Amino acid sequence: MRLLLSNDDGAYAAGLTSLRAAMAEISDDIVTVAPDRNRSGASNSLTLERPLRVRRLEAGLYCVDGTPTDCVHLATTGLFERDADMVISGINAGANLGDDVLYSGTVAAATEGRTLGLPAVAVSLIGENPTHYDTAARVAVDMVRLMIRHPLPADTILNVNVPDLAYEALDGFAATRLGNRHRAERLIEDSDPRGRPIYWIGRAGGEADAGPGTDFHAVGQGRVSITPIQIDLTRHGAIDSLDEWVQWL
Amino acid sequence: MRLLLSNDDGAYAAGLTSLRAAMAEISDDIVTVAPDRNRSGASNSLTLERPLRVRRLEAGLYCVDGTPTDCVHLATTGLFERDADMVISGINAGANLGDDVLYSGTVAAATEGRTLGLPAVAVSLIGENPTHYDTAARVAVDMVRLMIRHPLPADTILNVNVPDLAYEALDGFAATRLGNRHRAERLIEDSDPRGRPIYWIGRAGGEADAGPGTDFHAVGQGRVSITPIQIDLTRHGAIDSLDEWVQWL
Amino acid sequence: MRLLLSNDDGAYAAGLTSLRAAMAEISDDIVTVAPDRNRSGASNSLTLERPLRVRRLEAGLYCVDGTPTDCVHLATTGLFERDADMVISGINAGANLGDDVLYSGTVAAATEGRTLGLPAVAVSLIGENPTHYDTAARVAVDMVRLMIRHPLPADTILNVNVPDLAYEALDGFAATRLGNRHRAERLIEDSDPRGRPIYWIGRAGGEADAGPGTDFHAVGQGRVSITPIQIDLTRHGAIDSLDEWVQWL
Amino acid sequence: MRLLLSNDDGAYAAGLTSLRAAMAEISDDIVTVAPDRNRSGASNSLTLERPLRVRRLEAGLYCVDGTPTDCVHLATTGLFERDADMVISGINAGANLGDDVLYSGTVAAATEGRTLGLPAVAVSLIGENPTHYDTAARVAVDMVRLMIRHPLPADTILNVNVPDLAYEALDGFAATRLGNRHRAERLIEDSDPRGRPIYWIGRAGGEADAGPGTDFHAVGQGRVSITPIQIDLTRHGAIDSLDEWVQWL
Repeated sequence: MRLLLSNDDGAYAAGLTSLRAAMAEISDDIVTVAPDRNRSGASNSLTLERPLRVRRLEAGLYCVDGTPTDCVHLATTGLFERDADMVISGINAGANLGDDVLYSGTVAAATEGRTLGLPAVAVSLIGENPTHYDTAARVAVDMVRLMIRHPLPADTILNVNVPDLAYEALDGFAATRLGNRHRAERLIEDSDPRGRPIYWIGRAGGEADAGPGTDFHAVGQGRVSITPIQIDLTRHGAIDSLDEWVQWL
Repeated sequence: MRLLLSNDDGAYAAGLTSLRAAMAEISDDIVTVAPDRNRSGASNSLTLERPLRVRRLEAGLYCVDGTPTDCVHLATTGLFERDADMVISGINAGANLGDDVLYSGTVAAATEGRTLGLPAVAVSLIGENPTHYDTAARVAVDMVRLMIRHPLPADTILNVNVPDLAYEALDGFAATRLGNRHRAERLIEDSDPRGRPIYWIGRAGGEADAGPGTDFHAVGQGRVSITPIQIDLTRHGAIDSLDEWVQWL
Repeated sequence: MRLLLSNDDGAYAAGLTSLRAAMAEISDDIVTVAPDRNRSGASNSLTLERPLRVRRLEAGLYCVDGTPTDCVHLATTGLFERDADMVISGINAGANLGDDVLYSGTVAAATEGRTLGLPAVAVSLIGENPTHYDTAARVAVDMVRLMIRHPLPADTILNVNVPDLAYEALDGFAATRLGNRHRAERLIEDSDPRGRPIYWIGRAGGEADAGPGTDFHAVGQGRVSITPIQIDLTRHGAIDSLDEWVQWL
Repeated sequence: MRLLLSNDDGAYAAGLTSLRAAMAEISDDIVTVAPDRNRSGASNSLTLERPLRVRRLEAGLYCVDGTPTDCVHLATTGLFERDADMVISGINAGANLGDDVLYSGTVAAATEGRTLGLPAVAVSLIGENPTHYDTAARVAVDMVRLMIRHPLPADTILNVNVPDLAYEALDGFAATRLGNRHRAERLIEDSDPRGRPIYWIGRAGGEADAGPGTDFHAVGQGRVSITPIQIDLTRHGAIDSLDEWVQWL
């Protein structure tokens, strides 16, 4: 079974290195295609305006001067002679909980693997400067092994967040829904050394909807949260009332 | 009522210019914050690695050296003293149908306006080199006017696709769901003038799920498709079975 | 006579707009090809890793998603059917004195026009936020007019710095040599909003060699400095002693 | 003696790896600060519009998300507690002969080390896909050793080009001047997969001034060319006649 690995922190990030080492326990056919630098916050962005370059760093490890989505897109549309069977993205240095998922390059890399016919998994390790990559890597191994034994539907995309604890200190796994953050914090105004104004995007908001059932809640209790993600962005429940509204137009 | 306009084709794109002119019929309080260049395919990407610069091009028109999401994010987190009431994004030069929505910067700009308390609208004009921006602008005016008279729920995000026809030639409006494209076409391999390999992302796949009820189907019949978009990416229907699966871990 | 204009502050910069307006007095055949954004500090950098895009902004005004050197390079290697006769670059918002010239995109744009068979001129207006663009534009007109009447050798490149004064307040023109700055100021260490370290390039050093005959000295006395720039970076005076040194190898 | 190494092909380029290994014979105090990706053609460009990030790849090896000039600038303005004594840049994959020097990031990195009080050296290996990095590395060692024994003036910058031959096959060293290339080849017009026009910078021109005494001539005869480079871009020989010309203004 060929595993395709990627991430959004870049080809040399510690989280990806841990993931590669762990996945070697499961398969001896692993290819990793990751951005050549940190592309956190890249979401599902695709590079359409310029061509991409692929650099082979070592056997089975490639980097691309593009986004996580570019990496998985190239890897699944002809970069290699043989298709991968599954995509595992991560281990992200930091949580991807609630609204974070909209912006996450880690989750986007998994999403882009959706056409491969097997589930895709995005793994994130919670914390500002998390350290237990071994824990997250072991969780990833647990999940991929189980997926092989007990397959999930082919179009499943799982967003996995792991508390920054020793593996033994984890309190199990929970199937969750995405919670919700408050509105982002105010932008940060500053000036460059030449006195010109610059603006940084502010920090993500705090937890708003973080009650039982959410990913925020699960990880707050020391559990690994596993949230199924959907690709179809249609808000199906709103179509009927919109249908009436449209009559006024 | 303050309208916030943005797009992903850049501050000088014809579609945005048409939109600005049309919206002036509705409000005299319009601010436009758009990328300083074409950022098609940017999805919801946020620029976290470097600060952003905002340049005032003329009264009420600003450009940012970032993504569409950066533009709306800054505009709604402190760039201006007063919040906008509604976000309208577009008019995109080209369709945003089915899976396109995942990658679309136009839709992402609307999505980023979700916290403002009024619906957000993304408007795209179908075609490779579409010409009827006036039609799409008039559709945008119709919709915003109706939203003011008959408000939709505050967290509504509408993805609107307009056939490239004269306004009179349109066959009305349809509330739709997103259709589905086939897997993207193969990557395009080429070499640069120095003989080194380069790769372009291939074209989007053709229509796969394009039956009645989809956006593809509606626009194929000359109607404006209006698809409600959701922010919550949880695949709620999969949580229960995932809950059982998780027990095996 | 076809004039090719460019700059490094971007196609919409005030200095370029002034220059375009002034040059219209001299010729009715003017093309401007400038970067699509601020590219100060670009030096002679050429974009070799990706293709460039050229966008026509209005009649005779084009922007390129590249460096000043890219702009003039494209404009002189086939972008237009007819070659330009002379390149004028500027008006830069800020001085290009002494060592600045090494890093200057404004001077680089002029340098890149060296093959055209007529002199190339780079014009900069001194000051942090200079205002007398009309003065600098008039100086540029004076110079181009004189060049036409009294041609200079074809491979002449002139670096012109104009004090930020009313035209009448200028104390004439001076042929100068480049002065010298002290070593640049220390880098500026900071951290981004996520607490990660970032570094800004420090400010240019103060004047070191700024005595009579230098550009620093001339502009300090209210005169326009005109420094001839060379393309041949060989340090000819050092070849003989190097020749001896090489014998030891 | 602390040696500062850099290049423009990026921190992981084969040429830099060879150079680092070879320099370890001379000093046990080596720091390398190089771009995080290929920045060929960067010339002396400095990144002023955004802050830079420095990443430690391994002991003594750092990469920067900027240009070669940024790398050496940061390294000599405070990134480290102790200043380096000499800068060696390379080994570039490809020649830097004649006009190439204007655009070369390899030479620019050496130039930026000019304030350190010891000579700076840029080393390039000739050829499209050169292979004898060991030869160029040994040449670099020869030169640095000789510089230590027989110092050159402190502001010397040497541009060294090495034929792609075995070390034993080299026909010695020559002190040279820069030759000259013909005008660059025509731009290359193409279109992207969406049918939009794109332009690549054309190839450098062939040899124009390549007679005896030039770097082109020396390397054509199997010798290592060593050209002294100057920082002062004033064309001193033209000042007097320009002084007369200026009187007409």
